[in-house]
Amino acid sequence: MSKKPLILVTNDDGITAPGIRALIEVMNEIGDVVVVAPDSPQSSMGHAITINSTLFVEKVTVDKGKLEEYSCSGTPADCVKLAVKQILKRRPDLCVSGVNHGSNSSINVIYSGTMSAALEAGIEGIPAIGFSLLDYNWNANFEHSKPFIKTIVENALKNGIPNGVVLNVNIPNLKKKEIKGIKVCRQAKANWEEEFDKRKNPQGRDYYWLTGTFVNLDKGEDTDEWALSEGYISVVPVQFDLTAHHAIQHLNSWKLND
Amino acid sequence: MSKKPLILVTNDDGITAPGIRALIEVMNEIGDVVVVAPDSPQSSMGHAITINSTLFVEKVTVDKGKLEEYSCSGTPADCVKLAVKQILKRRPDLCVSGVNHGSNSSINVIYSGTMSAALEAGIEGIPAIGFSLLDYNWNANFEHSKPFIKTIVENALKNGIPNGVVLNVNIPNLKKKEIKGIKVCRQAKANWEEEFDKRKNPQGRDYYWLTGTFVNLDKGEDTDEWALSEGYISVVPVQFDLTAHHAIQHLNSWKLND
Repeated sequence: MSKKPLILVTNDDGITAPGIRALIEVMNEIGDVVVVAPDSPQSSMGHAITINSTLFVEKVTVDKGKLEEYSCSGTPADCVKLAVKQILKRRPDLCVSGVNHGSNSSINVIYSGTMSAALEAGIEGIPAIGFSLLDYNWNANFEHSKPFIKTIVENALKNGIPNGVVLNVNIPNLKKKEIKGIKVCRQAKANWEEEFDKRKNPQGRDYYWLTGTFVNLDKGEDTDEWALSEGYISVVPVQFDLTAHHAIQHLNSWKLND
Repeated sequence: MSKKPLILVTNDDGITAPGIRALIEVMNEIGDVVVVAPDSPQSSMGHAITINSTLFVEKVTVDKGKLEEYSCSGTPADCVKLAVKQILKRRPDLCVSGVNHGSNSSINVIYSGTMSAALEAGIEGIPAIGFSLLDYNWNANFEHSKPFIKTIVENALKNGIPNGVVLNVNIPNLKKKEIKGIKVCRQAKANWEEEFDKRKNPQGRDYYWLTGTFVNLDKGEDTDEWALSEGYISVVPVQFDLTAHHAIQHLNSWKLND
């Protein structure tokens, strides 16, 4: 009998979120599961880490079963670091993050706590996948996503994810039979048109809420936005080496040392 | 007489940090300066943004002169969004972030608040540069960096930074005459070997401090780490489209739709 893979599960919506519960359920069918996730919501934390403050970790029982679960006071990236260096007895074979309540397609990957956890695992050399469902509601229905998540994870364990690459998976908010399939994509060149909602607090001081509209002018049929709008699940390989190699030649033409 | 460029200055060490004061001094020689920076230190905040909390902005006077300054309760990325959408009367010609107290070379770019501010400006379509000095001390000496910062900014304004690219500049902690020059580089494939310092609080509960050692096994002479170790200033072009295009073909060989 072959040894089961060790799977680290984390997220950014907090350890009790329905999204991570759905992901744990699928992972329990595939491997030995250890959960290390934030004790409170950490959405839009980007790749923040905790260096000027302390971290607390508690062993907890949220779901019954063979899995181990730990609740952590830090960010999603902190959870992965703590899991790998402090909690797990051996290196995990895979790290999965999510299922996020809401999209992390296109430029959202850069703000995403879900994806920063996956990227942190990637930086540690651990194959990693972030999953997001295009439904921001706490009571989003994750049932339709489950068979697709299983397929993607089984493929990743079988084929291996290339070094330096992490997968960003977004799932349209559709019924299982309405989902057309899984497409490998590039990140669409879309972004947020921010608006600030200006208000006065009871003491008369101005303050702002950040709001915005997502604008996609990139109509490429090889993009995640296109795939999602057509009813496909998008899989974007993302990298954490941010070097823009194509720009090096242009910069070498500058007069920097005259 | 040509119109002076409008330069947005921000950082992650907070609006009163000596590093941003040095950067402002250089920018005052080049353009019209508006400062929008965090009211407190925001190191290692990555690309965090504030969506579940309110933002406060105060007009302040830290340095005398023609510049305008605003102190903001948010993250570095929030500061840039607020500046562009709420505070500035026209689009800035350049955004500079820093000078950070400490290195943002190699993988550190992904955790860096300094660089996330620059990347946020890049996402907004504004040419942007992050500067960091390899000295973590609050009283670091930024004098030797100033002429090099001026050269890089003048080149950026004259030649333009390619679309989708932001510059990550790191400066060795050396005297001006010891700095050998400015080198365009790729990001070294180095990372942190984390260790957690485990302690007990007065109530007997375990907690952790994140610590670690920076490990660079990438000896390439085209890397930022090599340049810095040899006494050069490193300039790495970084991108915010994270797609790992080279991995798409491999992923297309997976059996995702069987």
